[in-house]
Formats: sequence, structure tokens, C-alpha cells
Amino acid sequence: MNRVITFTTDFGLQDGYVGTMKGVALSINPQAILVDITHAIAPQNIQLGALLFAASFQYFPPDAVHVVVVDPGVGGTRRAIAAQVGETQFVAPDNGVLTLALEQMTAARPDVDTRVVHMNRSEYWLPQVSRTFHGRDIFAPVAAHLSLGVPLDALGDPIDDWVHLALAQPERRPDGTISARVIHIDRFGNVVINLAEVQLRKADWSKLVITIGGETIKGLENSYGDVQTGHLVALIGSAGFLEVALRDGNAAQVLGAQIGQEVLLTP
Amino acid sequence: MNRVITFTTDFGLQDGYVGTMKGVALSINPQAILVDITHAIAPQNIQLGALLFAASFQYFPPDAVHVVVVDPGVGGTRRAIAAQVGETQFVAPDNGVLTLALEQMTAARPDVDTRVVHMNRSEYWLPQVSRTFHGRDIFAPVAAHLSLGVPLDALGDPIDDWVHLALAQPERRPDGTISARVIHIDRFGNVVINLAEVQLRKADWSKLVITIGGETIKGLENSYGDVQTGHLVALIGSAGFLEVALRDGNAAQVLGAQIGQEVLLTP
Amino acid sequence: MNRVITFTTDFGLQDGYVGTMKGVALSINPQAILVDITHAIAPQNIQLGALLFAASFQYFPPDAVHVVVVDPGVGGTRRAIAAQVGETQFVAPDNGVLTLALEQMTAARPDVDTRVVHMNRSEYWLPQVSRTFHGRDIFAPVAAHLSLGVPLDALGDPIDDWVHLALAQPERRPDGTISARVIHIDRFGNVVINLAEVQLRKADWSKLVITIGGETIKGLENSYGDVQTGHLVALIGSAGFLEVALRDGNAAQVLGAQIGQEVLLTP
Repeated sequence: MNRVITFTTDFGLQDGYVGTMKGVALSINPQAILVDITHAIAPQNIQLGALLFAASFQYFPPDAVHVVVVDPGVGGTRRAIAAQVGETQFVAPDNGVLTLALEQMTAARPDVDTRVVHMNRSEYWLPQVSRTFHGRDIFAPVAAHLSLGVPLDALGDPIDDWVHLALAQPERRPDGTISARVIHIDRFGNVVINLAEVQLRKADWSKLVITIGGETIKGLENSYGDVQTGHLVALIGSAGFLEVALRDGNAAQVLGAQIGQEVLLTP
Repeated sequence: MNRVITFTTDFGLQDGYVGTMKGVALSINPQAILVDITHAIAPQNIQLGALLFAASFQYFPPDAVHVVVVDPGVGGTRRAIAAQVGETQFVAPDNGVLTLALEQMTAARPDVDTRVVHMNRSEYWLPQVSRTFHGRDIFAPVAAHLSLGVPLDALGDPIDDWVHLALAQPERRPDGTISARVIHIDRFGNVVINLAEVQLRKADWSKLVITIGGETIKGLENSYGDVQTGHLVALIGSAGFLEVALRDGNAAQVLGAQIGQEVLLTP
Repeated sequence: MNRVITFTTDFGLQDGYVGTMKGVALSINPQAILVDITHAIAPQNIQLGALLFAASFQYFPPDAVHVVVVDPGVGGTRRAIAAQVGETQFVAPDNGVLTLALEQMTAARPDVDTRVVHMNRSEYWLPQVSRTFHGRDIFAPVAAHLSLGVPLDALGDPIDDWVHLALAQPERRPDGTISARVIHIDRFGNVVINLAEVQLRKADWSKLVITIGGETIKGLENSYGDVQTGHLVALIGSAGFLEVALRDGNAAQVLGAQIGQEVLLTP
């Protein structure tokens, strides 16, 4: 009964939308433990939601219920889905925002099935459903019911054609150079690039040359402290992606980095 | 004992003020479940606090205790009040910030009395009371004591002259046009207007013409998805007010919308 | 088991870093009660972290565990420490961010020892430790283990040479004038100055003249309401420091106040 429910949205914290979702959840399961992952996903940026959620959810208890609402299609024809892998459960709009998380779970536990249902049973929603705030009217109440033990299958019909998000992948050019992209800039100005540690396993990290915003960085380090104050450093960040940082400073500002900007890696 | 206490303030999240209030509450009732509604009310904007709180609190369990602190008069002569309707309890400065919420409760349950007391019994406050932070020294401890079962009457003397906030109401002109005002711009740039759904019940929604910032919108839709990407759409938002949005974009930016700006409706 | 764990960091709320720490803590102690103090410490500003944490932590239950992560040296040679005074426990990087809090506790309870250990036992960390996110990999899991009753001594070797932060102190000039500094500007634009109430005990508050940003304020008041709207007011703020505010406005904007700016007091 006192299972964790996490919330990841693009709602921000200024309007009370998140508080309202929590009120709905606690009205259904007063024992639920509610935790925010983040509500600062750029409005309607499904890819960023998928990324930040995937970097965080795996650190929660395995029986947590995760609510992810980045939902530009709210009130339209997009489906709402619930998913389960092992004990872990998810509710979200069917727009790909769960893609990375479900892929991670499958990679970590290839023996366990991913089950997904189209949430089309309204008995687990609020009695009145608006067409602009399904976080409150559908996702929060369903998550609370799941946390109480309602089985996934009760929420709707099983589907296997849920939306997969095609994340921009780095491209390898004929000369061996890799063309990657900036996918996130964090609070510290660290520049996160769409190249996962696993994709660099065969490279010689000390010889990699990274070019971004006219600057060149030679070699990957292990921590920010491996370079002098004010110097750029490339490393594998805490979410497992290539990251460019500035020791004791803001790399994104110095580089003029933007989401989507090209980053070149030469082995 | 494990009742919900909600917090709505203009304290922001950068200074630790909210955390401090929670520490005080948990020191008195370690079982309380603490939930933020929002702390991003524009500093000292009582009307916005009243509005966002009223849109959210009704989704919490009916026995919740709600703390609302938008308090430009802290340390001066304004009273602190506690209120109760049914099981639901409230603590706030007596400046009208509870007006909308109490009106809603009365409308929903006309049979139930609203009881209000002037909180003038210091035994439920912190031993030392500053003149600048009653959220910490008075409101949080009183809410925690209420959550433990201290009756409303113990907190102070009953009053019936608490401050009512006169929210700006739309005006109906002789030609039938309604002159309304922008009262909130949310995280998504949706423009919220001081015209509640109930005030539009008799109108023909498909024929309404809304004029704001030089733009004209014809008819009310049901959801953002009812118009094409990049188009303005008018609808009843999730809090029950008329709202102007931009499909997949930021209406407030496109319209140059400001709080207080006039919006005209022609039936 | 259901002890409070507080979190004070410079992580911001946009990236999911804080949510991830909470997931780690709940995975170890599902009964822990997690509370944010603030995550908006300016990146890597140890002094501000020390200040805001010290102003808040004392309002929590005495058996709380406090996690403070402002950690520019993460992954380098700085130590991680855990501290205990009475029942209250702390985990933080050894960079002085706990200095003010520990000094406060010692001042309040001179009879009680401060015990500090160098956290060098990895059995209480996550199995995999990154070099960029010790909040997740070391501090959160250690705090959760402490909340379960693991004794301080189990975490590592006792030390007595932990880092003390030398906070800039006001200087008294030969003519009796005090030269102080702006140490914080809060959400409301209130300007907090590095002069604690205790340092002003012998002064005649009604005769003090405060000069800041070209403006002069005569005498200390008790609350914002003691001056007219739009006027500057000096008072002792809720954290016990001298503060300059603007009645119903933003003093920092009017004064052009900056962190580190000089403030002169003439007795």
C-alpha cells in the first residue's frame, strides 16, 4: 500500500498542476509515497522527458509506479498506456516518452516480458475527465490504483504497437568520425551528448578528440577535477552519456551550446 | 495522525523557507504527509494565490489541512485565521487569500457551515515568534496541531468578519459584449481569463468571438488538438476558466499577453 | 525507521538529480521521510549552502539526518564526511558546507560533542560509484543507512581536522563604523547582510545608520509594516541576520544590490 509513485512532467512548479495530481493520488491511496523526478521538462519535449526519466527511475524501488506526463497530444486521439516490466509499473501518454526506460529494463532483464495496455477503462479515472489535464484526471488516479494492487490488465486491453521514440542516433562517417548531437544542458551547464558509454567501449578514450562549438578537447577524463579550473573536460556523465563540462564553470555558456548542436568525435 | 498538510505560498523554492516550515510541521506531527501545491505565487499576489489554491485544494482528501501563506502584511496588524468547512481545515493570513476556496466549498456543500477563528492563542505557535516569518512561527505549527486533532476553537476566538477578496469580475456592456481580464499565464503560456465556465453556460459556444491582443478567435473548442499546430484556440481550462492557448506553442508570447489585460467576448 | 532525511543541494530541480537521490534513499529505507530544504544554492557556492542550511535545519526533528551536497570537488581528493551532534546526523563533502550548522549546534549545546568521520567504508555506498555524482552514489545511500540506525562509527574513521569555512566577517573600523557584506538576496529581494543579531546586541538599534547602494536607512524596525509602502526598512530577518527590505517591493532591485557588496553601519 505504501508503494512509491514518481512523477515526471513538463508541468513546471508554478501553477499547482503537480500538487493537484498528488492530491488526486493521495485521495485514492493515502499510504502512497510521492516523489518528484522532475517537472522541468521543456514544454512538450518528449525526447528530453524520455531521457531524464530513463536516467532516474532505475534508482527507485523495483515496485514503484512511475507517472510520466509530457503530453502535447492531450485531449486528442493519442492513447494513454500503462506498462509493466517485472514489478515496475508505468503510466504515460502513448507518445514514446517511456521508450528509453522500457528499453533499459529489457536490456537489464531480457528474460522478463514488457506488458503494455491501452488504458481504456474509465472506472479507474476521475469521474469527470477534462480534455486538457489528463495528468490529474487519468494518469494520477490510475497510478494510485496500481499502487493499491489493481492489476495492469484491469486498466485496458493489451497492445503491442505502442509508440517507440526514435531518438536521434550518432552517425559514423566513412572516415571514422562520429557526428553526435547535444541532447541536454543541465543545471551546471554540463553539455550532454547522445553518445552512450556503451557506444564508446571499443574506442581508446585517451585518444578521442571531441570538437564542439569551435573548441577541441583531447581525451576523456574520469572526473571534473582531472583538469584545471576554467578548462573544458569531456567525460562519461552520471547518466552514462558523453558530457562536456567546464571545471568550476558553465561549459554551455562558454561554448554557446544549444540542444541539437553537432558534436564531432575523432577516434 | 497521518493527515495531509498542503502548502501554498509565495516563498519560492530558493531560500529554504518552505523546507523550514516543513521541519516545524514534522517536529510537531511526525506522521503528517506534506504536499506542496505551489510556492511560485508572484510575491505578495493575494489574488493569484487565491486562484491557484482554489483550483487545486479540492482534489486533496477532505480531511486535509491547507496552509496558504501569501502575506504582505506579515508582522503588521492583519489577523491570522483558521477556517473549517466539513472536515477540511485552512490556516492563512486574513487577507482574502482563502476567499475563492471557501466560496467553492460553500457552493458545493451549502448545508455545511464555514467556521472561522482569529488565531490569537499563542500556545499553538512556536515559542519565539518573529515578525517577518509567520509561515514558520505560526501557520506551520498551527496546521500541524490541527492535523493532530486540536479542534479549531482551541486556536482562537470565532469571527465572522474575515476579509473577502473582491476578485475583478467581467463586465457586461450594453451591447452584450463581455469585458474580461487575463488573471494568469501558466507554464505553457496558456492565458487564463476571469470568466468561469458557469458564467458561459447560456452562451452558444460555437458563436462566441474572443478578442485579445489584436487577435480574434471564433468559437470555443474542447481541446488543444481541435485546431492545427500554430493556431490559437479558446477553451475551458482545467480549472474551469476560459483559456486561450496556442496548439504546440506559447499563446502568451504570441499575444504579448499580460496579467490584467482586457479580453473581449462577443456572443 | 521513519526518520526524516533532509536534502540541501545546488542541483536545481530541472534534471532529475534530486529525484534520483530520493529513489536511492527510499530503496534502502522505504520508511524514511524525505524533505527538501533547497536545491537552488547557486552552483558550487559553498558559503551560500552553509548559510541557508544553517538557517533551516534546526527546525527539523532532532533525530533528522541532513544531506548537504554543494560539491565542486566531486570526484577529486576532497573527503566525504558524516557528523553527529546529539541525535542529529549530517553527511556532506568535507568542504566547510556544514561549518555554520555545526557551530550553531555547539553553541546551543556546549555540553555535547561533535563527532565527525571520514566516510571511507564503501559498504554503505552504491555498488558502482561514479566520479561525478556522489550525491546519488555515496551521500544518499549513507544517509539512508544512518536513518536505519547504522552507527556513525561504522561509516569510516574518526577525524578532527574537517574543513572549517571561514565566512567573511564584518570589520570594525577605527571610527566605529562597521563594514559588512551582502551575503544573500532572497526571493522577495530582501538583502541579507553578514551581521548576526548577536553582533548587534550592544548597539542602540534606533540610532544605527545603514548605508547600502547609495541609500541610507536610519534605525532598525521590527517588521516590514513599520514603514510606508515603497520605503526601505532594516530589520533582523528570520534567520537572525541584518536584512534590508522594501515594503511591498524588491529592495535588491531598487538598490542594485549584489552578493559581496559592502554595507556600512554607523552606530
